[in-house]
Amino acid sequence: MTLNISIAYHSGYGHTEALAKAVEGGVRRFSTAQPHLIDVTQINDAGWAQLAQSDAIIFGSPTYMGAVSGPFKTFMDQTSKIWMERGWQNKLAAGFTVSGSQSGDKFATLSQLATLAAQHGMLWVSLGLLPGNHSSTGSIDDLNRIGGSIGAMAQANTDQGADLAPPQADRETAALLGERVARLAAAYKNGRMAQDARVEPEVRMTKAG
Amino acid sequence: MTLNISIAYHSGYGHTEALAKAVEGGVRRFSTAQPHLIDVTQINDAGWAQLAQSDAIIFGSPTYMGAVSGPFKTFMDQTSKIWMERGWQNKLAAGFTVSGSQSGDKFATLSQLATLAAQHGMLWVSLGLLPGNHSSTGSIDDLNRIGGSIGAMAQANTDQGADLAPPQADRETAALLGERVARLAAAYKNGRMAQDARVEPEVRMTKAG
Amino acid sequence: MTLNISIAYHSGYGHTEALAKAVEGGVRRFSTAQPHLIDVTQINDAGWAQLAQSDAIIFGSPTYMGAVSGPFKTFMDQTSKIWMERGWQNKLAAGFTVSGSQSGDKFATLSQLATLAAQHGMLWVSLGLLPGNHSSTGSIDDLNRIGGSIGAMAQANTDQGADLAPPQADRETAALLGERVARLAAAYKNGRMAQDARVEPEVRMTKAG
Amino acid sequence: MTLNISIAYHSGYGHTEALAKAVEGGVRRFSTAQPHLIDVTQINDAGWAQLAQSDAIIFGSPTYMGAVSGPFKTFMDQTSKIWMERGWQNKLAAGFTVSGSQSGDKFATLSQLATLAAQHGMLWVSLGLLPGNHSSTGSIDDLNRIGGSIGAMAQANTDQGADLAPPQADRETAALLGERVARLAAAYKNGRMAQDARVEPEVRMTKAG
Repeated sequence: MTLNISIAYHSGYGHTEALAKAVEGGVRRFSTAQPHLIDVTQINDAGWAQLAQSDAIIFGSPTYMGAVSGPFKTFMDQTSKIWMERGWQNKLAAGFTVSGSQSGDKFATLSQLATLAAQHGMLWVSLGLLPGNHSSTGSIDDLNRIGGSIGAMAQANTDQGADLAPPQADRETAALLGERVARLAAAYKNGRMAQDARVEPEVRMTKAG
Repeated sequence: MTLNISIAYHSGYGHTEALAKAVEGGVRRFSTAQPHLIDVTQINDAGWAQLAQSDAIIFGSPTYMGAVSGPFKTFMDQTSKIWMERGWQNKLAAGFTVSGSQSGDKFATLSQLATLAAQHGMLWVSLGLLPGNHSSTGSIDDLNRIGGSIGAMAQANTDQGADLAPPQADRETAALLGERVARLAAAYKNGRMAQDARVEPEVRMTKAG
Repeated sequence: MTLNISIAYHSGYGHTEALAKAVEGGVRRFSTAQPHLIDVTQINDAGWAQLAQSDAIIFGSPTYMGAVSGPFKTFMDQTSKIWMERGWQNKLAAGFTVSGSQSGDKFATLSQLATLAAQHGMLWVSLGLLPGNHSSTGSIDDLNRIGGSIGAMAQANTDQGADLAPPQADRETAALLGERVARLAAAYKNGRMAQDARVEPEVRMTKAG
Repeated sequence: MTLNISIAYHSGYGHTEALAKAVEGGVRRFSTAQPHLIDVTQINDAGWAQLAQSDAIIFGSPTYMGAVSGPFKTFMDQTSKIWMERGWQNKLAAGFTVSGSQSGDKFATLSQLATLAAQHGMLWVSLGLLPGNHSSTGSIDDLNRIGGSIGAMAQANTDQGADLAPPQADRETAALLGERVARLAAAYKNGRMAQDARVEPEVRMTKAG
């Protein structure tokens, strides 16, 4: 069984792309998982088909003005037909973001990505790591040094290119998220395949009673 | 394989309890699932043990002043030791809320419950239903008539007791969430049991590189 | 003293524009206030200049996929230079949104608009109305029938054009927000003009101590 | 004209109290402003009266499990009667929070405080400072080193008492928020007093049309 994990991202200056590649590397650590990097500003029919057949989609966007970037939001809006048809229902989802400040409003971006997933009826995979760099013995080399919980948060100095920023700890944090999504998606897929095929459909008509 | 699904809730005037019972009924629709109702203001050692062995926890709180109730927040704070020990890591989670107004700030409450789950490293199960009552042919009898996505939203008239409010459509919406969590938890549990037991542990040390 | 109040909005199908015009009418109820409607997808140099000299900016966007629309987010990103120069610091701000479902994730959209304002160092004006339609004697003709607090929430049936949807109660709710912003902006502007001109500048250097 | 600025806070281990005192010091920098520290877990009739006659209320809470603390939420719930009577309508509000991790979910806590203010019909004062420590020449001594926008964010090492944590930069950031609220409250109060007394009341009946 091959597991397809898509990473749908927008990157303005390369920092988000660096994280996307770190997530990709993390996905590869799980033996049966096949990552697919999709730049949402360049998405074509093949990209949409790839998303449609993915077991999980990991969303990534820089945080601009306290939210996902305009190009990423444009991609979100493009999914409205899929939303209506429940095309992504029950897939796994996760997210990552990066900005110049330590905290900034990165939480808001991740919350927006989790809300997108909820709109699509997906299951949201949290980061699953305790915070690092939160005591006098901590450092910026700690995993999850920014302290995200909904997803992976990274910080990139505004005067550094993607060769230097975000730092290694943030990239490894993102990689662990990728690996985690792959592992959970595998478990879930195995279980779904074993589950009684007669199970009643997930999406109902909209009248109660 | 028995599936344990806990419903951890606080109810101020009975409306949230009515929803909790609707969720409980929904869980029972899935044959192997055993629901456990836990009033978080009365929780004892047995209740904590029940949560610890649950495959999924569904959180429920009224929306008071734009967030979960004080008693529910007190319960949330009591989970901080579990958080540190990653006791709920990888369990499934979901949420429901009720308030007097149609929208109010119920989204904020559900977002807070999803954030609690993320802090614990859980997987968040969205409602999985398109909105109802959103066209000229819709009505307050529609499933998901309030239009939640992160979880189940209910509306209870402020001058009606839990015998009348929230209405049937909201209770059935909550029940479908319970059933959905049970189904997904079963798939996930089956898959986890089948997955290679040698899989590396989920929680890592906090140093990168 | 003339008070300049801009209404910066994007409208996909006319419903948000209908609300924007309702806000405009509300602003006009305050005698010294001059409203300026700005479609952010058509904004030009004159529009940016208008925003720069406004005492308050009221943001409006439909809720698409649980957040502001792509075109509105693109506008938000275009304000990043103003953000860095603190061009909108201390202006008043407020917001409104509309979507097909009753609640949906309209809260998330308003929260995003309030976060935009916070990034710019603005003061956020809440709706200032108790919720309507929250008891057995309420109706969809009530002011604030959707129950917003951060801003004005409206609901437009997905099968009705802007001639019919959102209904009159939502438009009047939006108008009251416009009037409220004008009144508060007048008070604040009067006070600022009276305040000692020697007051130390609001924006500091970034080193503490 | 004396300006009354209340600081309503809960502190679990002293770190939030240290910030509250920093805010208090900042308020005092504005000559006509009188700060009032109110521990919400000890609030009595005099405290409620103080809040009622305050021109601005600055809310402070630690971030526990991704939200305000249980004791602070209990205080929030206690304000529901004031909410119904619109007792705090049009007062200014602001907020601050502290937690062990750099970002964590502090944004969520500040958003919750801003939502509380919106429920009460208040005006929310943002931090008004660009982020610090966001480039290769930045440091943890920068003002707004954590990068908040809605309010003041502080980080306290989990193994340090309130004598050492949060560090000076965070305390000065909080102090500047206090001073800013005082200055803006003064402007607004001056303007309100000058404004035509015949102005129509802010709170309307709840029927439209």
